[in-house]
Amino acid sequence: MTGKLYGLGIGPGDPELLTLKALRLLQAVPVVAYPAPEEGDSLARAIVASHLPGGQTEIEIRMPMVAARFPAQEVYDWAAGEIGGHLEADRDVAVLCEGDPFFYGSFMYLFGRVAERFPVEVVPGVSSLTACAAVLGAPLAARNDVLTVIPATLERHELAQLLRDAEAAAIIKVGRHLQKVRKVLDLLGLLDRARYVERATMGEQRILPLDSLEEAGAPYFSMILVHRRGEAWT
Amino acid sequence: MTGKLYGLGIGPGDPELLTLKALRLLQAVPVVAYPAPEEGDSLARAIVASHLPGGQTEIEIRMPMVAARFPAQEVYDWAAGEIGGHLEADRDVAVLCEGDPFFYGSFMYLFGRVAERFPVEVVPGVSSLTACAAVLGAPLAARNDVLTVIPATLERHELAQLLRDAEAAAIIKVGRHLQKVRKVLDLLGLLDRARYVERATMGEQRILPLDSLEEAGAPYFSMILVHRRGEAWT
Ligand SMILES: C[S@@+](CC[C@H](N)C(=O)[O-])C[C@H]1O[C@@H](n2cnc3c(N)ncnc32)[C@H](O)[C@@H]1O
Ligand SMILES: C[S@@+](CC[C@H](N)C(=O)[O-])C[C@H]1O[C@@H](n2cnc3c(N)ncnc32)[C@H](O)[C@@H]1O
Repeated sequence: MTGKLYGLGIGPGDPELLTLKALRLLQAVPVVAYPAPEEGDSLARAIVASHLPGGQTEIEIRMPMVAARFPAQEVYDWAAGEIGGHLEADRDVAVLCEGDPFFYGSFMYLFGRVAERFPVEVVPGVSSLTACAAVLGAPLAARNDVLTVIPATLERHELAQLLRDAEAAAIIKVGRHLQKVRKVLDLLGLLDRARYVERATMGEQRILPLDSLEEAGAPYFSMILVHRRGEAWT
Repeated sequence: MTGKLYGLGIGPGDPELLTLKALRLLQAVPVVAYPAPEEGDSLARAIVASHLPGGQTEIEIRMPMVAARFPAQEVYDWAAGEIGGHLEADRDVAVLCEGDPFFYGSFMYLFGRVAERFPVEVVPGVSSLTACAAVLGAPLAARNDVLTVIPATLERHELAQLLRDAEAAAIIKVGRHLQKVRKVLDLLGLLDRARYVERATMGEQRILPLDSLEEAGAPYFSMILVHRRGEAWT
């Protein structure tokens, strides 16, 4: 007998956007693990804090700020070892995943290390993709639209090519890539079709047309939605 | 004073994948509206049936089977009128939306008719996109992957062009387009990278590699996920 690993999607920020299933499992497992910055508080833990029953073992997966590939690998190896120890001792473990675990989530690195040896169940969550559309009050994609999700980390010419052809696009991981993305959208004449969302459904949420955003950089939890055809949903 | 319209994402099928927020609003509103086929039961209503408190007014939005554009327009006009009547009388209305309301959801047609006159709030839900990845046990997209969501309703050459370039793709609305999609994937040498999911998180869920699916057609609630790089998440 071994324990089971749950990848728990906990939604984009509002604690009320947890699913009933995530809440049940969160309160049932003896061990909860979550990513955290090198110093300071874990956002994932903060999202569920009001739901925690107390008395659980907690594993903090602290990531070095400069997310170089090798230190990160070591941290995931270590976390997989800690989690594996609990699973071997027949204790279920829930890993908290902001949004949905498999939508660009770091859960996949633990999954890749644990899934061959132990049972794993992924509980899907509300992703930032649909949360951003909801708070904007604008459909993400409709009818026969092709929807493209584009990491802002790509090179400028890759962004340009993808955005030139996209009907509906969501640009994630904006952060320090904001200026590059803005430039590309401007050159393509799409700036007035782009909307910016920061910390959707969290306390400090901000929403504005991209062309009225004044800052040169954006926080990590920000996204740009672009819809070429505008409001084509009536 | 008018009522408020809620577009309630109720998740992909499992009643436990409702969010706490959707549950609270579902049980608080006096009026619940939902899409239904021309005859027979509404899937959206079935998803939430165990959560309904009873005593609410229900509006069934029955869609003619052949979803021709004009009859559908008339049905949405009618539904917007019914809903508008309740909102004018200061009664809040929740429209049940399978998955997420703004991820290719028909809610947008009501939204387009109601949002200018009344307050509307969209409550994001777990979409079929991430639910399918969860039940497959395979990340949807990782790191700097571009993720493309493609309606199977597109022409064969459009599908071929999109799939040729896609790193990670989700093909939705498969239904009677299954053979066309399979052919395109086969020609591109991607058949063995494609996985088929039917009714994710519902009772009759089916999951299989696309190349072992024998049927010529698929039900409406099915999706094909393709990941060009295979299991690149370790
Ligand atoms: C590594 S991805 C993880 C996404 C997450 N697993 C999900 O399902 O939403 C992180 C990116 O998601 C987006 N994101 C996550 N939460 C967000 C929020 N509350 N508001 C805006 N963007 C968000 C940002 O673009 C951020 O850079
Ligand atoms: C009109 S779209 C609506 C999607 C919905 N709003 C959502 O967020 O999932 C309908 C398509 O979504 C996909 N879909 C919805 N629910 C599904 C499920 N439970 N399993 C597999 N595919 C599903 C299918 O491809 C279907 O043709």
